[in-house]
Amino acid sequence: MKVNFKKVSAELLGTFVLVLIGTSTAVLTNGNILATALAFGLAVMMMAFAVGPYSGGHFNPAVSLAMFLKKKLSGWELLTYVASQVIGAILGSLVLFLLLDSSAQLGANQVNQFIFGSDFLGLIKGFIVEVILTFIFIFVIINVVKNEDASKFAGLFIGLTLVAIILAGFNFTGLSVNPARSLAPAIFEGGESFTQLWVFIFAPLTGGALAALVSNLFDKNEG
Amino acid sequence: MKVNFKKVSAELLGTFVLVLIGTSTAVLTNGNILATALAFGLAVMMMAFAVGPYSGGHFNPAVSLAMFLKKKLSGWELLTYVASQVIGAILGSLVLFLLLDSSAQLGANQVNQFIFGSDFLGLIKGFIVEVILTFIFIFVIINVVKNEDASKFAGLFIGLTLVAIILAGFNFTGLSVNPARSLAPAIFEGGESFTQLWVFIFAPLTGGALAALVSNLFDKNEG
Amino acid sequence: MKVNFKKVSAELLGTFVLVLIGTSTAVLTNGNILATALAFGLAVMMMAFAVGPYSGGHFNPAVSLAMFLKKKLSGWELLTYVASQVIGAILGSLVLFLLLDSSAQLGANQVNQFIFGSDFLGLIKGFIVEVILTFIFIFVIINVVKNEDASKFAGLFIGLTLVAIILAGFNFTGLSVNPARSLAPAIFEGGESFTQLWVFIFAPLTGGALAALVSNLFDKNEG
Amino acid sequence: MKVNFKKVSAELLGTFVLVLIGTSTAVLTNGNILATALAFGLAVMMMAFAVGPYSGGHFNPAVSLAMFLKKKLSGWELLTYVASQVIGAILGSLVLFLLLDSSAQLGANQVNQFIFGSDFLGLIKGFIVEVILTFIFIFVIINVVKNEDASKFAGLFIGLTLVAIILAGFNFTGLSVNPARSLAPAIFEGGESFTQLWVFIFAPLTGGALAALVSNLFDKNEG
Repeated sequence: MKVNFKKVSAELLGTFVLVLIGTSTAVLTNGNILATALAFGLAVMMMAFAVGPYSGGHFNPAVSLAMFLKKKLSGWELLTYVASQVIGAILGSLVLFLLLDSSAQLGANQVNQFIFGSDFLGLIKGFIVEVILTFIFIFVIINVVKNEDASKFAGLFIGLTLVAIILAGFNFTGLSVNPARSLAPAIFEGGESFTQLWVFIFAPLTGGALAALVSNLFDKNEG
Repeated sequence: MKVNFKKVSAELLGTFVLVLIGTSTAVLTNGNILATALAFGLAVMMMAFAVGPYSGGHFNPAVSLAMFLKKKLSGWELLTYVASQVIGAILGSLVLFLLLDSSAQLGANQVNQFIFGSDFLGLIKGFIVEVILTFIFIFVIINVVKNEDASKFAGLFIGLTLVAIILAGFNFTGLSVNPARSLAPAIFEGGESFTQLWVFIFAPLTGGALAALVSNLFDKNEG
Repeated sequence: MKVNFKKVSAELLGTFVLVLIGTSTAVLTNGNILATALAFGLAVMMMAFAVGPYSGGHFNPAVSLAMFLKKKLSGWELLTYVASQVIGAILGSLVLFLLLDSSAQLGANQVNQFIFGSDFLGLIKGFIVEVILTFIFIFVIINVVKNEDASKFAGLFIGLTLVAIILAGFNFTGLSVNPARSLAPAIFEGGESFTQLWVFIFAPLTGGALAALVSNLFDKNEG
Repeated sequence: MKVNFKKVSAELLGTFVLVLIGTSTAVLTNGNILATALAFGLAVMMMAFAVGPYSGGHFNPAVSLAMFLKKKLSGWELLTYVASQVIGAILGSLVLFLLLDSSAQLGANQVNQFIFGSDFLGLIKGFIVEVILTFIFIFVIINVVKNEDASKFAGLFIGLTLVAIILAGFNFTGLSVNPARSLAPAIFEGGESFTQLWVFIFAPLTGGALAALVSNLFDKNEG
């Protein structure tokens, strides 16, 4: 039950940077979809290169859950990873909160009004969007990491995957696919961001578990 | 006449993701050309890395036809690939259709009104644009896959090629270069999307066949 | 004095694609700077991967001149390369011209009115911009090709370099850095595009020669 | 106390190009955030490939300071590097200044009014933003260069990191993370750009020193 300080520092720092850079861009560009998608995607890329060699570079509880289900992480490691990610995300939001003097728009991940209402049907649809896109995102991650050539620059390819996922889902739900990235701004913003938070915690975790499952099906007939 | 379930699942899943991510972005950004081009291109990239090792990562009947003409695929395989791509594309459109409660704009690939009319001359020009750009797209694919260095990250380079192809052709025809990607939304939207569908089926197939032919000419003097 | 048909076909096809994709995007997006820069840059990338192994992938008389000055190309080869590039560019413009039914805006590379007038001082400044940016572009090309690691994916890095060069110079001169890419649309558009053409022929050639020179200075102390 | 002319020429030329291309784009697109971020990021990429093999490709006094603190650079080399970077940046601004006939907007890096005022609290916040984002930028650089795979294409990954950093910070401070890049335009523009210059000199240097420190902490338990 020892904590590997290098691993947890890496996850904390990576998630801090992801949330700070992504949320800053989303808030300060008033939700420019291209700028926001690139900022989140390239933040994953840079931190995957910077601290990935220490921790694997998850920065996302849904990714860590999938890696736990694929038996790449012990239950205790999963706990320490998720805790570090949540703390890093909260610190990222805190810094932005202090710089902005205002919490408005910080919770950019509430279910967007463009298509969904905040009624029950809207939340269900938002849930489905987050499940499907997290499934795709983490299914790609699992396979890129397994691929001998692609894994050398996994950070780049995974970051660019996140860009596309955000482009597709931004106008549905603000696109989270990451419970830590949603929890932190919601704490500072409160209101509807907080009451809808369950969607952005359980849907990505479900998508991550599904990705682990489907990738196991593909692997089974491999040998 | 056996079906390789891993290969067809890979093609089905890849085309599902391509259509879902690309069409979502096109519809929800009201046809933002940069966002749409990046979403389609990066969707090809991510699925090429995710399932390319299983099936080669075509996600496009025109690509599969070219590979058949280059003798990399048997006639039976071609059939199973195309069927999987069509099913995957239909599922992708179905998911988007259910989430949107509306089929408007789903068929983003009808011949665009910016330049062409929907009269006979307009359709012929649209046909020519799709033939030329599919030829370029698939000629690049064939050569990237042949190149020892580039083939290691073929998914990235092919995805970025699709970005440029879409930027060039989006305001002509909505740019398809992929019969499966055009068929599926047209089924859900109907109307003009459906009556013009023949352009988006036969033109990309013609372009793909041409690419196989020209690449054979380049290869001939190789040995 | 034999013509290597594979090499000249490669240069012709590459320049055809570069002009067709870049100019289509510029014209049909009304000069969207990001779309145009990406289209030109990624067109260079894709054709460098597709036909670069045959000819080196110049698609630009200024690049071929620099390679001649670096003694990588004979005088006769230089002639055949430039001729192929000019023919390819003219074919690319011709296709676009026929599809558009209008030559307006085809010559997107005239000296832009944003900053420069078309008076003598304006043309001189346009000349200087083209010299400097072509120098930078081709200096980067020469060094990327020399670098053992970077040369493996030279097409990508050179294409992205062109993206940045266009972003910087687009609002000065429409940014050419390529005599063939400027000559072809000017033929179809005529007018001011044609009378200012000398700028876009001599300035890039000067920049290319300068790049060969400076890179030789860096090389000299190498051994 | 000898000067290595190849190294200082490389740093001078690289910083010249970075400032010229980045600032041109920022000024001529009226601060289009995506165009500006891509232009600066890709300018770093291209010059890292072009002259990085000679000097390491810093183009930034804060990077050189961090490398000095990591003992990769002697004190004398640090001095020659910084002097070359400053001269290169001034030449880049001078060229743009002469082409524009106007110094307005040249100092795109003054503390932006979007969020911060130019009062003391605003400057302090601007200082903090520059420290944090420079820390992240240079921490990534140090780790990419250390990574055996990533270091082969370090220029690309570092350039894309700068893109994300600029997206996040552009609407806070215009984002500098580079004292040379801030000093040069301020000289030509004067006014508020000049009186706020201390922020853009000391904050990036602080961030760079912090990055060296934190990366040493990660390294310590390595062996």
